[in-house]
Amino acid sequence: MIAPAMSDATLAQRLLDGDRRALARAITLVEDDRPEGWELVKEVYPHTGKAAVVGFTGPPGVGKSTLIGALTKAQREAGRTVGVLSIDPSSPFTQGALLGDRIRLTEHFLDQGVFIRSMANRGALGGLSEAALQAALLLDAAGRQDVFVETVGVGQAEIDIIDHADTIVLVLMPGSGDSIQALKAGVMEIPDVIVINKADHPLTDTMVREIRGVLSLANLDRSPEEAAKRWRVPIVKTEATHGVGVDELVRRLAEHREYILAAGQLEERRRRNLHNEVLAIATARMRRRLEEELSEDEEFKRLLEEVVQRRLDPASAATTLLERGV
Amino acid sequence: MIAPAMSDATLAQRLLDGDRRALARAITLVEDDRPEGWELVKEVYPHTGKAAVVGFTGPPGVGKSTLIGALTKAQREAGRTVGVLSIDPSSPFTQGALLGDRIRLTEHFLDQGVFIRSMANRGALGGLSEAALQAALLLDAAGRQDVFVETVGVGQAEIDIIDHADTIVLVLMPGSGDSIQALKAGVMEIPDVIVINKADHPLTDTMVREIRGVLSLANLDRSPEEAAKRWRVPIVKTEATHGVGVDELVRRLAEHREYILAAGQLEERRRRNLHNEVLAIATARMRRRLEEELSEDEEFKRLLEEVVQRRLDPASAATTLLERGV
Repeated sequence: MIAPAMSDATLAQRLLDGDRRALARAITLVEDDRPEGWELVKEVYPHTGKAAVVGFTGPPGVGKSTLIGALTKAQREAGRTVGVLSIDPSSPFTQGALLGDRIRLTEHFLDQGVFIRSMANRGALGGLSEAALQAALLLDAAGRQDVFVETVGVGQAEIDIIDHADTIVLVLMPGSGDSIQALKAGVMEIPDVIVINKADHPLTDTMVREIRGVLSLANLDRSPEEAAKRWRVPIVKTEATHGVGVDELVRRLAEHREYILAAGQLEERRRRNLHNEVLAIATARMRRRLEEELSEDEEFKRLLEEVVQRRLDPASAATTLLERGV
Repeated sequence: MIAPAMSDATLAQRLLDGDRRALARAITLVEDDRPEGWELVKEVYPHTGKAAVVGFTGPPGVGKSTLIGALTKAQREAGRTVGVLSIDPSSPFTQGALLGDRIRLTEHFLDQGVFIRSMANRGALGGLSEAALQAALLLDAAGRQDVFVETVGVGQAEIDIIDHADTIVLVLMPGSGDSIQALKAGVMEIPDVIVINKADHPLTDTMVREIRGVLSLANLDRSPEEAAKRWRVPIVKTEATHGVGVDELVRRLAEHREYILAAGQLEERRRRNLHNEVLAIATARMRRRLEEELSEDEEFKRLLEEVVQRRLDPASAATTLLERGV
């Protein structure tokens, strides 16, 4: 139950006013899958759509969190409010960010203009993405001008949440050979911006050349007119721990935003994303309902035993379940 | 329609007899989601469970296909029949395997004891995995003693099909820094066997040491007794193009199989996998049904427009859909 001191109405209003405590509580409600959380999102949804949502993906260890920390600092200095959502189980944000070099991230915890939240990896299909997307909406409604979403991803990993960003940044470092191969093989989608962090490394320039090669190949199947109109994916070299290259990244992000706004792509992208989001939420709920109903179901246990004993095949067992009308 | 020359009954019998044409046709039926395909799997399912299913995962470009080719050769020389299923869109198997160095893979196409099949990446949730799992069952029913499944994966990528293997092999090469980081961060699960292919590289031994470090960390939270009883993940160095290290890999795979059989893990693993498979098939069908029903649905288009106009939030739209009883 909501404590009387903070009724639903108050919570929504305080959230819209940008109150950090209200925001924290709202995200917890959503994360815990509480009906009040969903009601709240419903109530504040008309106030969303204003934030610039940037998704950061890339292998663990490349310094995504430090980069987001540096970017947050830059945007705060420019007077913008920032929300950070981390869905990366290996992220210092997720792990508390209290030790050593990571302490720099915590400087933002005291700043009212910054809200940092990590969400645990629930693993299940859709479950976490579902909550994370709602949390991003809450940050947006609370007036955060920039929402940075951190996820871990290498190769073809399609993390739903990243698809909901207006701008997708792939962060690599010298030595990210697997990711380059995945880009090259077309297994990983080309992002909007590529950052090579930890760029104070002798192999950085080789890597930049390699990525440029991949990007020019990706344009080969386009006509010159198409290629000219298309967004040219910038490669930004950064050393996030020293703030090097962060200003350039800020500029590139702003340019990408201008580009998608001018080209009408932002609306199209968001329309497609919202379509997928509705389906993803519906599917996640159907799966959860199915799993809950089956966890204690004797008939399912019997069916499963038949499958294990190779008397009934898995697809027929699934058909039986669906016909029963779960 | 099935041509009269090959009725369902004949097809099932010919498949069980190991006929390659029957196998090819059966997999096509399953891939096309034809009811005859599902009927066929149902019919032959009691004859499955005998094959040793080995899943190969790893970033593109590390040489998984060449390794599987070399392994296939070794197993054929030992008199075993082999089925290969490739779900990797960047694989030479998938792309036809006809050029240059890749020609070596095609030598197996003429061998009746080898069946190679690639499946296209359908992208959608569960759709491809669903068909691939059925294809693996068909290979098993057709008496293939070894079934090798090739998938692409880096980082946390959980490709369902790989979870259904009895033994999971992670293939890396010197330069696979992202994968090592993902293992280190606990974002990628520890496989049963690790192969470092293209091992004629000065950095190979550094990489072996790094992986050993990760593996010993993974044992830290176990008691000495637990750690001693546990499978020790071997690191095998190979040069698949020259067949180097392939015999050792064959031995390691056999050892892992003996281990899981002796420890009773194979049965447990398969029970869990079959449980997940039934749920995955049911969920994939629910999602497909939902998407089909919605693709032409005026009410859904209207709902979606409300969401795009920020008048109705995505979760409420999903609720409305589910309440309508799709």
